[in-house]
Amino acid sequence: MALIVQKFGGSSVADAPSIQRVARRVVETKKAGHDVVVVVSAMGDTTDDLLDLAGQITSDAPAREMDILLTAGERISMSLLAMAVGELGVPARSYTGQQAGLRTDTRYGKASIVAIGPERITSAISEGKVAIVAGFQGVNELNDVTTLGRGGSDTTAVALAAALEADVCEIYTDVDGLFTADPRVVPSARKVPAITYEETLELAANGAKVLHLRSVEFARRHNVPLHVRSSFSHKEGTWVTDASVTAPGQEENMEQPIISGVAHDRSQGKITVVDLPDVPGIAARLFEVVAGVDANIDMIVQNVSTHGSGRTDISFTLPESDGRAVRTALAEAADQLQYSEVRWDDQIGKLSLVGAGMRSHPGVSAKLFSALFGAGVNIEMISTSEIRISVVTRIEDLDTAVRAVHSAFELDAEETEAVVYGGTGR
Amino acid sequence: MALIVQKFGGSSVADAPSIQRVARRVVETKKAGHDVVVVVSAMGDTTDDLLDLAGQITSDAPAREMDILLTAGERISMSLLAMAVGELGVPARSYTGQQAGLRTDTRYGKASIVAIGPERITSAISEGKVAIVAGFQGVNELNDVTTLGRGGSDTTAVALAAALEADVCEIYTDVDGLFTADPRVVPSARKVPAITYEETLELAANGAKVLHLRSVEFARRHNVPLHVRSSFSHKEGTWVTDASVTAPGQEENMEQPIISGVAHDRSQGKITVVDLPDVPGIAARLFEVVAGVDANIDMIVQNVSTHGSGRTDISFTLPESDGRAVRTALAEAADQLQYSEVRWDDQIGKLSLVGAGMRSHPGVSAKLFSALFGAGVNIEMISTSEIRISVVTRIEDLDTAVRAVHSAFELDAEETEAVVYGGTGR
Repeated sequence: MALIVQKFGGSSVADAPSIQRVARRVVETKKAGHDVVVVVSAMGDTTDDLLDLAGQITSDAPAREMDILLTAGERISMSLLAMAVGELGVPARSYTGQQAGLRTDTRYGKASIVAIGPERITSAISEGKVAIVAGFQGVNELNDVTTLGRGGSDTTAVALAAALEADVCEIYTDVDGLFTADPRVVPSARKVPAITYEETLELAANGAKVLHLRSVEFARRHNVPLHVRSSFSHKEGTWVTDASVTAPGQEENMEQPIISGVAHDRSQGKITVVDLPDVPGIAARLFEVVAGVDANIDMIVQNVSTHGSGRTDISFTLPESDGRAVRTALAEAADQLQYSEVRWDDQIGKLSLVGAGMRSHPGVSAKLFSALFGAGVNIEMISTSEIRISVVTRIEDLDTAVRAVHSAFELDAEETEAVVYGGTGR
Repeated sequence: MALIVQKFGGSSVADAPSIQRVARRVVETKKAGHDVVVVVSAMGDTTDDLLDLAGQITSDAPAREMDILLTAGERISMSLLAMAVGELGVPARSYTGQQAGLRTDTRYGKASIVAIGPERITSAISEGKVAIVAGFQGVNELNDVTTLGRGGSDTTAVALAAALEADVCEIYTDVDGLFTADPRVVPSARKVPAITYEETLELAANGAKVLHLRSVEFARRHNVPLHVRSSFSHKEGTWVTDASVTAPGQEENMEQPIISGVAHDRSQGKITVVDLPDVPGIAARLFEVVAGVDANIDMIVQNVSTHGSGRTDISFTLPESDGRAVRTALAEAADQLQYSEVRWDDQIGKLSLVGAGMRSHPGVSAKLFSALFGAGVNIEMISTSEIRISVVTRIEDLDTAVRAVHSAFELDAEETEAVVYGGTGR
């Protein structure tokens, strides 16, 4: 008998039959003797439809109104799911973010949870009911509705699991768990049975899409065990926990694999600022300009000046969507920075190798570079952390690179599982 | 400078262009120097779509969950309308029933308003903002969402107008106001410029569909002037007020017309209980049985026994939808009531002539009966109140009857206005 929080994304509740399938899943868990709290996203395309309606009316909707609009989606899915669970003979009640006690700050569209007072959820549980909570939403001190931004429903689920001291937070999605690589790129990718928060964060930050960075951070901070699994099967998925914990249902594994997975990211671009004066403080001045437009810089390379001119080039990567703002800021600072040229390259790909085992295994980078060399892939930039190595390649080489590295680190499954790889909604 | 509450039904906010049209209307009123509070229904078919989804999941949805589900519709329309008003340069904020302070009892699906604390609306007005409120919904003492049932958005608007002491509550619909008869039946029907609450109640209770009984009762109790008008034109509509008040914008009219309109209703059926023992108390026993299934009895006729048998027939009308339950109850009480037969007739129509002027004008009924006789329409039942006469006819004679009576009382317009007659949504 455990307390289980189950989160279902939009693709799991896309229509009435899907909602009924989810309800059967919830009821199975309840009938197995567990207490169940469910967090749901909006049905399938509801959020896109609402965004489209708002877009027909204005290109500049006030964030407060946008939040009220979008939260309608979860109210629809949660009440329908409560009906579906009730129809199977198990009492269920649905709760909005406000009713579930999710209090946030007032940053509409990207609010942070400041406190959770889940008294109504606790009461529902103690009355033997399944509590169904709208993901993605909370209420601020003005009694206005807020949304939690990208990955918001995962964050709701993890935050509720922490507040309720749940035994596990199950994140249901349309894939079987986290994989050693994106199966659309690497058909031989394997499901990872267990992984640490840290590694999951590195994977999520470097292009893997199943879990959102923010909810994993929340889970790590509050030590909430996550179980990422498919709503279409009963297979064990991926347990995300602290490294020191053995996941329930997993055999103790004294020897962690070195590498957990290979992530890739096609959404970055590269800016090269050419012929900067090679004087102390020039990099600081450059990145002050960049920071002024709130761009999210990832990798940085400064080329040593080889032609004795006393000038240098600096390259950095950033989300493509930030490219225009940064280039505008650099153009405005041209007099101050005295560069000769700014180049923009959106044809790059990033490959990241992630594994907690890397820490104690020298030679990982050597093996990585040799695999890429063997596959004829040129490396343009490199960055490392204790549990990650990332390289930038030409975008057209990225898939080849991912497959070569996946093989070199013996991550390939013996048999290819037929899976559909996708996101968890929001 | 007045405080105006404007209510827009579902057909007025059916899509993004309609919402923009309503926004222009709201902004015009605001720019004319008035304070404006807007109440909106859900967009067009939203409510039906949500009901359909629920119907796919269960035929027996818990009322609490159904209320949360349905109230999503108004949250969508209200936030989109706030965006659209804002886009025209006038600041606007949307408020749910809970945020607008509409507190109700806990009868989900048909809640009554118990108190209104519209502090946030008052603040918004004093800050020069347009307040946009979700119709049809409130919150109960458990902090759960409730709906107000049929005519709920009208009731929200009237209740807010009463609480805010608004100068007028404008009910926008897709027709120009209240008409002397349904223009689909009587093409020469005229718009009524002014009418009393009392007459409007009689019309609404007897088949007219533009205003809901309940919101008119609320307006009468709190003396809120209603202005029923089209959202598609700027014409004056129909003012509904206390008889002693001259509607704003109306010339004083010392001589009220005798008759305000002719309503008709095709949704009733007639039950005849044949050969009841003609003994004291038999009618009481019969209607106790009927009351046991909560049926809404309208007209009653007891036929005097003419054949010296000591037995009598009692006929009564009721909504067709209550017919089955009543007939079942009567069958179960057959031993007690000792009738020989129960007959069911769903081929009846009801015509009601309504006018406050009737009180002081004898001869109205004589003129009515003579008009029906002249048109060859047979009268099956009659009932009267101080300001109404209703008759039951064969359903196939109803349109002829309505046209004949409309003409006899000189209600026909000189020119036929092209209008589309419909409901106000909810």
